Amino acid sequence: MSLESYLNTKKRIIEEALNRYLPSVKKSPVPLHQAIRYSVFAGGKRLRPILAIASFELVGGKGDAILPVACALEMIHTYSLIHDDLPCMDDDDLRRGKPTLHKVFGDGVAVLAGDALHALAFELLSKTQNPKLISEIAREIGTDGMVGGQAADLQAEGKKASISEVNFIHSHKTGALMKASVRAGGLLGGATGKKLKALTSYGEKFGLAFQIIDDILDATGRAEKLGKRTKADESKAKATYPKILGVERSKRRARKLLEEAKAELKIFSDHEQILKDLADKMIERMD
Amino acid sequence: MSLESYLNTKKRIIEEALNRYLPSVKKSPVPLHQAIRYSVFAGGKRLRPILAIASFELVGGKGDAILPVACALEMIHTYSLIHDDLPCMDDDDLRRGKPTLHKVFGDGVAVLAGDALHALAFELLSKTQNPKLISEIAREIGTDGMVGGQAADLQAEGKKASISEVNFIHSHKTGALMKASVRAGGLLGGATGKKLKALTSYGEKFGLAFQIIDDILDATGRAEKLGKRTKADESKAKATYPKILGVERSKRRARKLLEEAKAELKIFSDHEQILKDLADKMIERMD
Repeated sequence: MSLESYLNTKKRIIEEALNRYLPSVKKSPVPLHQAIRYSVFAGGKRLRPILAIASFELVGGKGDAILPVACALEMIHTYSLIHDDLPCMDDDDLRRGKPTLHKVFGDGVAVLAGDALHALAFELLSKTQNPKLISEIAREIGTDGMVGGQAADLQAEGKKASISEVNFIHSHKTGALMKASVRAGGLLGGATGKKLKALTSYGEKFGLAFQIIDDILDATGRAEKLGKRTKADESKAKATYPKILGVERSKRRARKLLEEAKAELKIFSDHEQILKDLADKMIERMD
Repeated sequence: MSLESYLNTKKRIIEEALNRYLPSVKKSPVPLHQAIRYSVFAGGKRLRPILAIASFELVGGKGDAILPVACALEMIHTYSLIHDDLPCMDDDDLRRGKPTLHKVFGDGVAVLAGDALHALAFELLSKTQNPKLISEIAREIGTDGMVGGQAADLQAEGKKASISEVNFIHSHKTGALMKASVRAGGLLGGATGKKLKALTSYGEKFGLAFQIIDDILDATGRAEKLGKRTKADESKAKATYPKILGVERSKRRARKLLEEAKAELKIFSDHEQILKDLADKMIERMD
């Protein structure tokens, strides 16, 4: 199967499952449930759930056990985008080519929609009956992970950041949840030892490269690829790779990370490696 | 042991545990960790963890297994207060006699501190190795519980609400987490069947009464009992019991609920019932 048809197939499965797991818009309080669906179905690539599913399958996982986890990861990602877009955070009006949630439903509902998705994600994660997995994801999205990265990002605005500070921000803000996604698939598929270690390293490198590329696309103003306001980082004096290293060196860095991520996969015998193709797709995204 | 010395003893144990579980302020990003501790140690009554511990002990639970859950419940409560106080929500400047978090650290850090506590709570809950408990708490703080109640509360502002709408708001916004606290203690202590049912009913009635009393104290301006701005509900045209039924009828309603809550405890043989004394303390709070 080509990468594109794999992505399309999985995207459909993930979106059908999200539709089943999310509360109906007919349920009270209606605006909250409308807001949640507005954000979740705003047209994301479903990259984190796809990383989890591809990792799960790579290590021999079968069946639907990964689906609640995959959807939980997407809900966590969506909650973080909603809160990140708020006026008191990044103050973004556009996301995936549509007005951001708070522009449509107001800031209060946006805070609550994020909180509700956060809680629902853990309700789904509990379906795994795997407290270790729940603990790990909770840690990767807390102050040692995603939220810690967001806070460091806020703190660095308008200041001169070093490359190690930008690394901290990226690896926490974006990398932690991507690493957790790859690891969750591996853990649930039964990976241990070297295989789990390889997946972890892949996830770390992929996640960091993803954020570098996102910043490159923002800096070079490739709006059509992002579906959001570009040059946003520059206007907010964000700490980014392109700002510190320049666009070309940042591209080389991202490419190197993705090549290293691919190299981690060599221990797997599967020749149709979706994770490898995904890394290649990221490299192409810069061109 | 008198209720007061029980409460003081447990409060100290809970606060020592919170101190152990929360990230150090020396850890990066520093402002986030300062903000988290500012809110958690702003001087709460620790009512939800105490409900969980008292319920756990009532059904024969022994040891420290309840402590991570008790602290998780307090962290969830604190996160909800932080978000609820934001300008886009209830816009409160004062909480427990101190400036609210966003007044000191800014709105962005306040959103993130709430999010971090939310995630940390689930990391702690996973220590129970009890996915059923995790699932239940996640549900009670999501759109079917606490967040659903907050959203309904926001929606009802400035509108004429019926008593059933106010019941919905109170039982979700405040009641759900209190019920979950009492049930969590019961479940972890090994309660099933009639005992768990009695605890559930106690928690529901206690939680609803608590919010009615909170609204009465707000409406009658007993600032010294609340440590926050009073008449806040009136100024925001909030849907409350005193507004619909008047203060005296609201007091009778709260008292009736608490007497019913106490009656639920009759099936327990323990004569030093902390949960009964807590209900009596709530009744006295109105006088």
